[in-house]
Amino acid sequence: MFQRVAIVGLGLIGGSIGLAVAEHLPGISTKGYDASPAVRRRAAERGLTGTVCETAEEAVAGADLVILCVPVGAMGEVARQIAAALPPGALVSDVGSSKRSITRSLTEALPGQPIIPAHPVAGTEHSGPDAGFATLFHHRWCILTPPADADQALVKQLAAFWRALGTRVEVMDAEHHDLVLAVTSHIPHLIAYTIVGTASDLEDVTRGEVIKYSAGGFRDFTRIAASDPTMWRDVFLNNRDAVLEMLERFLADLEGMREAIKAGDGDAMFDLFARTRAIRRGIIELGQDDARPDFGRADHEG
Amino acid sequence: MFQRVAIVGLGLIGGSIGLAVAEHLPGISTKGYDASPAVRRRAAERGLTGTVCETAEEAVAGADLVILCVPVGAMGEVARQIAAALPPGALVSDVGSSKRSITRSLTEALPGQPIIPAHPVAGTEHSGPDAGFATLFHHRWCILTPPADADQALVKQLAAFWRALGTRVEVMDAEHHDLVLAVTSHIPHLIAYTIVGTASDLEDVTRGEVIKYSAGGFRDFTRIAASDPTMWRDVFLNNRDAVLEMLERFLADLEGMREAIKAGDGDAMFDLFARTRAIRRGIIELGQDDARPDFGRADHEG
Repeated sequence: MFQRVAIVGLGLIGGSIGLAVAEHLPGISTKGYDASPAVRRRAAERGLTGTVCETAEEAVAGADLVILCVPVGAMGEVARQIAAALPPGALVSDVGSSKRSITRSLTEALPGQPIIPAHPVAGTEHSGPDAGFATLFHHRWCILTPPADADQALVKQLAAFWRALGTRVEVMDAEHHDLVLAVTSHIPHLIAYTIVGTASDLEDVTRGEVIKYSAGGFRDFTRIAASDPTMWRDVFLNNRDAVLEMLERFLADLEGMREAIKAGDGDAMFDLFARTRAIRRGIIELGQDDARPDFGRADHEG
Repeated sequence: MFQRVAIVGLGLIGGSIGLAVAEHLPGISTKGYDASPAVRRRAAERGLTGTVCETAEEAVAGADLVILCVPVGAMGEVARQIAAALPPGALVSDVGSSKRSITRSLTEALPGQPIIPAHPVAGTEHSGPDAGFATLFHHRWCILTPPADADQALVKQLAAFWRALGTRVEVMDAEHHDLVLAVTSHIPHLIAYTIVGTASDLEDVTRGEVIKYSAGGFRDFTRIAASDPTMWRDVFLNNRDAVLEMLERFLADLEGMREAIKAGDGDAMFDLFARTRAIRRGIIELGQDDARPDFGRADHEG
């Protein structure tokens, strides 16, 4: 197992890793860094990592595992910043949502360094140093996308690290990861941001009305559309091809539904609406969501 | 206040009304009916209404308020079925999600009868006689859409009834209701059903992968897409114009985002992603959603 982990970027994911290591792997020491002085201060107050350093170089010095938890677009720059301070042989990993572009950035910035990109598929709509918690990764999946020439012993070691934090681990190539995440994460976010924007801009329906009657379905989209804007801008800039491909298919299907509505084709609608329940059942059976109505919102009258 | 309430249709909404009346208005007697014998049996076991009747006519006999809780497309037929048994002067209302078409159906089927359509904007993804609970309407809104010539005393009486069940009440015309709900409820459901369908049909991403990695955003769409297919087919058949109008605007905005992604226009993305947070804040401040991350899913590691 690793002994000294450095976490660069102390927002929701970086902070949660620090807290989860303290809880599940207390033998590992952690050092953290964030570019924002306010985030560093708050991270130190919450104890997100054992030490919070004033520079990225200081954080990675002596580490055997370095995890970059910054927006996808900042990965290359951060990697260049730490390059000189990195111990040779230290494994560099990350948590970003588009693996092809990150693999490229890290490989270019850190020639000769062991690199195994990773993506814990977990999160909430909150961001920043107050958002993290130790159980964020429980029952979630972490996808590793090792390059073809990766050291298999390091792949196993990184998988064991993520399992210790509560995730199940899958290994796949970066290209397939980017396609899978385009449909399970990126397109849902794009759609949610867009419909919330559409609703905000209406003139014949007020913003107050949209808010009041959001329990009809809209409010779930607003949760997703409250996610961190910088992170998501970078995802779409960096997973462009897979996102555009999946968007194309979604638009074709939505066009089909528009035609069905225009034509009053109730059978076509019923067919679609009935078969989508199977996937929901699968998600609940696999422990990826809560079967309580409204996620238990009704319990506390929220 | 009303004394004898008949509820026709004992699914999620009808059942919740019955339970909420028992809890909040114990002086009111309730009779219920459902076209399905299995639903009637289960409704009687759960005590969704004081009496569960074997015919709709029996349920409405003697009532001073009749609430139709059936899919929008069945409203006219049910109204014709009870027409002869309805006490003259009994108020007929409903809970459907498209008010123009329902107003038309009920007015045609029940000439001379007092009619005030209503729509409690509340629900879960579950349906049927086991899905209802007494607090479903707490902190939600109920929209009344009285025809221009409605008896104002009855409007007040119906508003008081819904307030007693825990809702806040708004009055608006049916046309405006249909536009508002198209954006806050119908389009979100259409989009959710469609993307879940798109994801089910992929060949290069398996259904197992979609389920495993659904925590990236997709799972929230599957909850909405698990809603009752008959109910939603009828909504789209009956609120066609408003849905198509809102769909047009959404598609135009989505096209704009597609162009931004194609062009690598990060500023356009960031602008949209940053301003959608305001609506989320409004929804939480108004008590229409839960601010806990992931609706508290993290609390119980769901």
